[in-house]
Amino acid sequence: MKKVEIVLSSLPMSGGDGPNSYSKNSHLQRRTTSLLKEAIDKLIIEKLDAKTLISGSNNTFRIADLGCATGPNTFFLVDDIIRSVETNLRRSKSTKPEFLVYFNDLPENDFNTLFTSLPRDGSYFAVGVPGSFYGHVLPRSSVHIVVTVAATHWLSSVPKDVVDKSSKAWNKGKVHYSNAAKEVVKAYENQFGRDMGKFLEARAKELVSGGLLVVGMCGIPKGMPFSNLADGIMYTSMAEVLIQMQSKGLITEEQVDTFNIPIYSPSPEEVTFLVEKNGCFTIESMELMNPAAWLKRPMNVEDVRQWMVCIKATMGSLFINHFGDHVLDEIFDRLTVKLVGLTEKIESSYREKLMMFFALKRK
Amino acid sequence: MKKVEIVLSSLPMSGGDGPNSYSKNSHLQRRTTSLLKEAIDKLIIEKLDAKTLISGSNNTFRIADLGCATGPNTFFLVDDIIRSVETNLRRSKSTKPEFLVYFNDLPENDFNTLFTSLPRDGSYFAVGVPGSFYGHVLPRSSVHIVVTVAATHWLSSVPKDVVDKSSKAWNKGKVHYSNAAKEVVKAYENQFGRDMGKFLEARAKELVSGGLLVVGMCGIPKGMPFSNLADGIMYTSMAEVLIQMQSKGLITEEQVDTFNIPIYSPSPEEVTFLVEKNGCFTIESMELMNPAAWLKRPMNVEDVRQWMVCIKATMGSLFINHFGDHVLDEIFDRLTVKLVGLTEKIESSYREKLMMFFALKRK
Repeated sequence: MKKVEIVLSSLPMSGGDGPNSYSKNSHLQRRTTSLLKEAIDKLIIEKLDAKTLISGSNNTFRIADLGCATGPNTFFLVDDIIRSVETNLRRSKSTKPEFLVYFNDLPENDFNTLFTSLPRDGSYFAVGVPGSFYGHVLPRSSVHIVVTVAATHWLSSVPKDVVDKSSKAWNKGKVHYSNAAKEVVKAYENQFGRDMGKFLEARAKELVSGGLLVVGMCGIPKGMPFSNLADGIMYTSMAEVLIQMQSKGLITEEQVDTFNIPIYSPSPEEVTFLVEKNGCFTIESMELMNPAAWLKRPMNVEDVRQWMVCIKATMGSLFINHFGDHVLDEIFDRLTVKLVGLTEKIESSYREKLMMFFALKRK
Repeated sequence: MKKVEIVLSSLPMSGGDGPNSYSKNSHLQRRTTSLLKEAIDKLIIEKLDAKTLISGSNNTFRIADLGCATGPNTFFLVDDIIRSVETNLRRSKSTKPEFLVYFNDLPENDFNTLFTSLPRDGSYFAVGVPGSFYGHVLPRSSVHIVVTVAATHWLSSVPKDVVDKSSKAWNKGKVHYSNAAKEVVKAYENQFGRDMGKFLEARAKELVSGGLLVVGMCGIPKGMPFSNLADGIMYTSMAEVLIQMQSKGLITEEQVDTFNIPIYSPSPEEVTFLVEKNGCFTIESMELMNPAAWLKRPMNVEDVRQWMVCIKATMGSLFINHFGDHVLDEIFDRLTVKLVGLTEKIESSYREKLMMFFALKRK
C-alpha cells in the first residue's frame, strides 16, 4: 500500500470564498456539471446494480468526488448522483441506504472552505480525502461510484522534457503544447498516458466490482490540432504576454521558458486505448459533448472578461507559484486586453465537442 | 439520519502551526497520550477480536479519532493503535489489512493544517470528517475502533441556565462551576449527562459489533469538589482577572457574567451510570489515572508560563469569540502573574488521579 509520491506542479484552485476565489468563480464549471447531469443520471439508473452493491456494504452507498476543489459544484454533482441512486433503488424496491461521500483533492486544497460550506441537511455523511488521485487515496473495494469532473485533464506534473534545454521537446517561449513542436505534443501525450494509467490502476483497486467510474474532462476530436481551439488562442496569447513582460524586465527569460501549463485534452480514442490497456473496466459510455453555453457568439468584451476571471481562479496559483503574486494581475489584465482584440478569431475557432464524458464499470 | 443541530460554544483549537498554535503547544496533551498508550495497547491486544472484524470488512480496519484537532498528537495516537492492531493480527496469523483513519473535529477545525502535516509513509489512508461528535459523523457499523482523547470533557455548549439571569443557576462573576452555587454544578452535570448520552448513542450506531470505544478525558474522584484542583484555582483566578479588567473598562460586566467555560470533569461513577443507561456497550475498563508529569512540584515561574501557553492554545478561541482578540493577551498575561503568586496553593491542590480512561465494547 505504498503511496505513489508525485511532484505536483498542478496546484489547487484558489481557496477561500472571496471575490477572486474558485468557489465564487466556477460558474463555467457549473454549466459543465449541468450538462453532465443528464448523462450521469441515465447511466446510474440504467447501468448500476445498486441493490446488489448496498447489500454487500452494510446498506451504505459510497461515492467519491475526485478533484472536488472547494465547492459548490461538487455539492450539486453529489446531490444529483444521490438522487439518481435513490431513484434506482426505489425501482428495485430496496431500503434507503445511508450515503457516505468522499471529497478528494490535493492536500493543499482549501478543505476548510469546503467543510464549512457543506450542506447540513444530513442527506449524507461527508468526509475529506487529501491526496493526489494519481495514487491510491482510499482502501480496496471501498467505493461504489467515483466521479471526477474538470480535473483529469490536469497532468500530475509538467512533462520533464519540455523544460529541459537539451531536449528536442524543450518548449522555449511557449506555455502549452498548442502550436508547439511535435516533440512537445508527444511529451504531453506521454505524460497523460502515464497519468491516466496510474489513475485507472488506482480506481480499479478502490472501486467495488460493478462500481462506476464517471469522468467529465476536456477532450478533443481525434487528429484535431489544439491550436484550432479558443483555448489554443488563449495559450498563444498568454505566451506573447509573458514575452512582452519579460522584455520590460518584469519577469525573466528563464521564468518564461520554464513555465508550462500541465493541461492535456485527449481524444476518446486515446482514452479508450488506455482503458483497454488497463483491462479492469468495461466502457459504458465514451463521447465528446458540446459544452454549448461556454462561450456565446458573437463574443463581447464582458464574455472575455468573465472567461479570464474563471481562468484566473482556476490557474492563478500556478502563476503565483512560478512568477510570484505581484505579477498575477498584470498578466491577466494584459491577456484580457489581448484577447478582446482577438474575438473574431476566437469566434471562428472550433468550439463544438470539447467536453469528454466517459463512464466505466469495474469488472 | 437527520443530524443533530448543536449550538457549539466550544470552539476548535487554535489553527495553523505558528508559535501560539495548538499544533505547537499541545505537549501537555502529548504526555497524556503517552500515558494512555500502554492502556490502549493492552486493551487492543487482549480485548479485540481483530481477525473477525476485518474478515467482515474487506480486509480494511477502520479507526476514528474524534476531536483530533490539528495534530501532531493524533498522529502518534493513531500510529500506536495501528501497531497494536497489527500485533493482535500477527498473533492470530491474519493477513495484514489496509487501515483507514477518520480524523474528526468540528467543521471550523483547521483541517488544512491537519492534512498538510499528515505522515506520508502510506501506512494508512487518511480522511477528515467535519462535524460535532455529539451527533452522528459516520455511517452505521462503519468503524472498528473509535478513540477520543482530551475532547469529551468539552460540553456541546454552555448550560443555558448558567447565563440566564432569572435562573438560580445564573453564574454571575464566575467562569466555571468550580466554587460556584450547587445549581451551577447541577446545570453542568446535567449538560454533561445529555451530551455523553448523545455521544454514546452516536458511537453505538457507528461502531461495528465487537468494536471498541476508547476515551481519555478529564475526570475527578466521586464527591471531590472541583475547587480542590489546580484547574479550579485557575478558573477562580480567571474570574478575578476578568472582574479586574471590567473595573478598568476593558470589558463589560455583561461580557464577564455571560462567559463560562464549557468543560466538565465527571467521576467514573457518573460515566458508568450513563454507559449502563445507554445499554449498547460492555465496560472493559474504567479508571482514573495520574497524569504524573503534568505539573512538577515544586512549581516554578516557567512551569506556570508553560501551563498558560497550553491553556491559551486550547481555549484561546473561546476568549476571542466572546471578548474579541484585542484582550486575549492581556487576559493571559494577568492570569499568569496571578497564578505565579499562587504556586504554593496550586502545589497543595489535588493533582493525583485526574485523567479518566475508559474503554467500552459494542455489544
